[in-house]
Amino acid sequence: MKRNKVVIVGAGFGGLTLACKLNGSTYRVLLLDRFNHHQFQPLLYQVAMAGLEPSSVSFPLRAIFQGSPNVRVRLAEVNEVVPEQQLIKTTDGDFEYDFLVLACGARTNFFNNPALEQHAWSLKSTSDAIALRQHLLLMLEQADTATEEEIRSLLTIVIAGGGPTGAELAGALAELRRHVLWKDYPELNASMMRIVLVEASDRLLGGMSLNSSQAAFRYLTRMGVEVLTGVRLSGYDGHVVQLSNGATINTKTLIWTAGITANVVNGINLSEKAPGNRIRVDAYCRMIGNESIYVIGDLAFLQTPRFPNGLPQVAPVAIAQARQVAANLLRMAKGRAPKPFHYRHKGSMATIGKHKAVIDFPWFRMQGGLAWFVWMAVHLITLMGMKNKLFVFINWVIAYFTNDSTLRLIFTPASQKTWDKKQKPPP
Amino acid sequence: MKRNKVVIVGAGFGGLTLACKLNGSTYRVLLLDRFNHHQFQPLLYQVAMAGLEPSSVSFPLRAIFQGSPNVRVRLAEVNEVVPEQQLIKTTDGDFEYDFLVLACGARTNFFNNPALEQHAWSLKSTSDAIALRQHLLLMLEQADTATEEEIRSLLTIVIAGGGPTGAELAGALAELRRHVLWKDYPELNASMMRIVLVEASDRLLGGMSLNSSQAAFRYLTRMGVEVLTGVRLSGYDGHVVQLSNGATINTKTLIWTAGITANVVNGINLSEKAPGNRIRVDAYCRMIGNESIYVIGDLAFLQTPRFPNGLPQVAPVAIAQARQVAANLLRMAKGRAPKPFHYRHKGSMATIGKHKAVIDFPWFRMQGGLAWFVWMAVHLITLMGMKNKLFVFINWVIAYFTNDSTLRLIFTPASQKTWDKKQKPPP
Repeated sequence: MKRNKVVIVGAGFGGLTLACKLNGSTYRVLLLDRFNHHQFQPLLYQVAMAGLEPSSVSFPLRAIFQGSPNVRVRLAEVNEVVPEQQLIKTTDGDFEYDFLVLACGARTNFFNNPALEQHAWSLKSTSDAIALRQHLLLMLEQADTATEEEIRSLLTIVIAGGGPTGAELAGALAELRRHVLWKDYPELNASMMRIVLVEASDRLLGGMSLNSSQAAFRYLTRMGVEVLTGVRLSGYDGHVVQLSNGATINTKTLIWTAGITANVVNGINLSEKAPGNRIRVDAYCRMIGNESIYVIGDLAFLQTPRFPNGLPQVAPVAIAQARQVAANLLRMAKGRAPKPFHYRHKGSMATIGKHKAVIDFPWFRMQGGLAWFVWMAVHLITLMGMKNKLFVFINWVIAYFTNDSTLRLIFTPASQKTWDKKQKPPP
Repeated sequence: MKRNKVVIVGAGFGGLTLACKLNGSTYRVLLLDRFNHHQFQPLLYQVAMAGLEPSSVSFPLRAIFQGSPNVRVRLAEVNEVVPEQQLIKTTDGDFEYDFLVLACGARTNFFNNPALEQHAWSLKSTSDAIALRQHLLLMLEQADTATEEEIRSLLTIVIAGGGPTGAELAGALAELRRHVLWKDYPELNASMMRIVLVEASDRLLGGMSLNSSQAAFRYLTRMGVEVLTGVRLSGYDGHVVQLSNGATINTKTLIWTAGITANVVNGINLSEKAPGNRIRVDAYCRMIGNESIYVIGDLAFLQTPRFPNGLPQVAPVAIAQARQVAANLLRMAKGRAPKPFHYRHKGSMATIGKHKAVIDFPWFRMQGGLAWFVWMAVHLITLMGMKNKLFVFINWVIAYFTNDSTLRLIFTPASQKTWDKKQKPPP
């Protein structure tokens, strides 16, 4: 029997779920990722805030597929797909495929603004989170010996984008300011630190209910975050943020969470571009016009009556699509017809701070303390690896009682007091 | 009452112990370190082998002294000491002192061989350990797709120096080869990997008993490590190791643990150099000729009848000296005379692998499984921080039952498949 080759590009929620479902099947599966580990993106903001270790939200791919009879893993980046030859060219060699699954997600969208791209910090990978953490800790160290005017710029943090990542970051920073700043740095105090959250639309958490948006706004404002809605960030040169309302803010730190754009795969020529640079797929998650290429997760564009702008670019969609594609591949291996994908929206959630989360379930909404515990439980359950679950749980228990962590570690010597965003990514 | 100023340079075992003992006293204490955390050096080799997280063996200094009435911490490197003015100049400003305590330890000694310094990996700091881990993991990834000849060079690891660090690294690598290599990389197998330990003297663990040396040799040889005693490493160009017996070894990885030299402090002029670049001290740990400068730990040179070449450069000596200096400073604050330092040698230990450790206590020796459990218990007890103890313990329990870890994480993207030792240190 011919064993069909499946090449999966990307080991995020979609690609990894698919590879796991095909583990032990008759397919020969090759899983490619540019990192050697699965990244649990929903908790990256806690890594950036030194609340969790990078290793707690990362799981090495080779460890997952140890002893697998049919799944192989490679640390590789895609150079080009050649659909006519059913061939994928990578930094680690060329591979033929019978089915190609593109699950390589999205990256930060700087909207072709090179100054932003150069100076603003993003938060889409573990290495982004490590670099941002490094930068924030060095800002605090510098502030400890700076002049009053310098301190203002060093301790002002502007976050662009009021989605879940922006709101969660702003909340975590507010808690750091309240509980940690003055304890670690006796020369500084909370009033010296300024946290500004800028959102271009008229409300935070645009993908959630109005009720949740308002609660998030209320939480953040009470925690001392300056929330600016209906304001665009029009420029940043590394020193001064320009806002569409004419105001300027002196800051050394701009964190950009104001949009994503799907990763480009060379060789995939689209007759018709979908919004957010995504690839249009049919009801079976196949790329329009090519039945041997599947696209799932943040990279896929699938309209439904409820989601005319495409399904949301979140983990549950990617996982559901991966499951359907896996089921269909297994059906096809047995000569049966594939079934179309139907998305059941399970809800969305965001956490702002301790005892402060918002959840929109399809049938009801939750806010506050109970929602916060549900948020933590859902994240612990979906996090990969028993040890990671345990370590995150312990860190959260410690943080619950102490409002502190012991992870504010700078692994560079004192002579290097700045961390350049553009230098080689830290390991 | 005049509150005397104590400046402590270095927050290793000596400097940190001293600062803790002076916490709450009438002295004003300034603790300087080039890193913002205390490093538990005895377990760095497990960080390099991806058995432990860097954060598990690091503890942030500011967290230790939160709320301290008299101890302040600064991330700073020393530029110069001006003894005549009782002044210390640092990257973070100048500070006056009444008492200066130099506890800034030692660094790897490459014996003025620039080629070695450029190409060999060392293991004296957390950032060294992170960089070496990154390099070793990338060697495995490269080997997965390399030609047979390249594989030999990629999977050959030469360790120079048969002291505790070298022996422990060699043992840990042998366990990685036996338990992990073929599981993570199905294309590779244990017989492709070569581990060579080179020691210039005629036995391993020169500071320990002959009995322990022989046991370590036996353990390592049985684990498949090639142990070369009485052989010097005479050169390395990044590709080929030259040995004093005329042999050469093709390798991409040379780890240098064959000697340390005390860190130089500018402005400290010594009439008489002590071996290992150390500073000669009197019975009160004061620098000869200057009663306001104390020197403790690896940097201090103190001869005793039992140790004519100076006390060993190990943690227990540094801690004992720190305690004595603290006690004397507190006595002097009350107008009482200081007492001389007496060193009671408590023994030494090294671990080679699971159920394989050697311990020399003053009255008896231990080897094997029980010694291994004692080694682990001693390290857990002396490790700083309850959370760190717990996380190391959990990692060790998992490793005990699985012979594996889930920490082989590469935080750089696939496009960067080498990690240059000379690039900026990774955070």
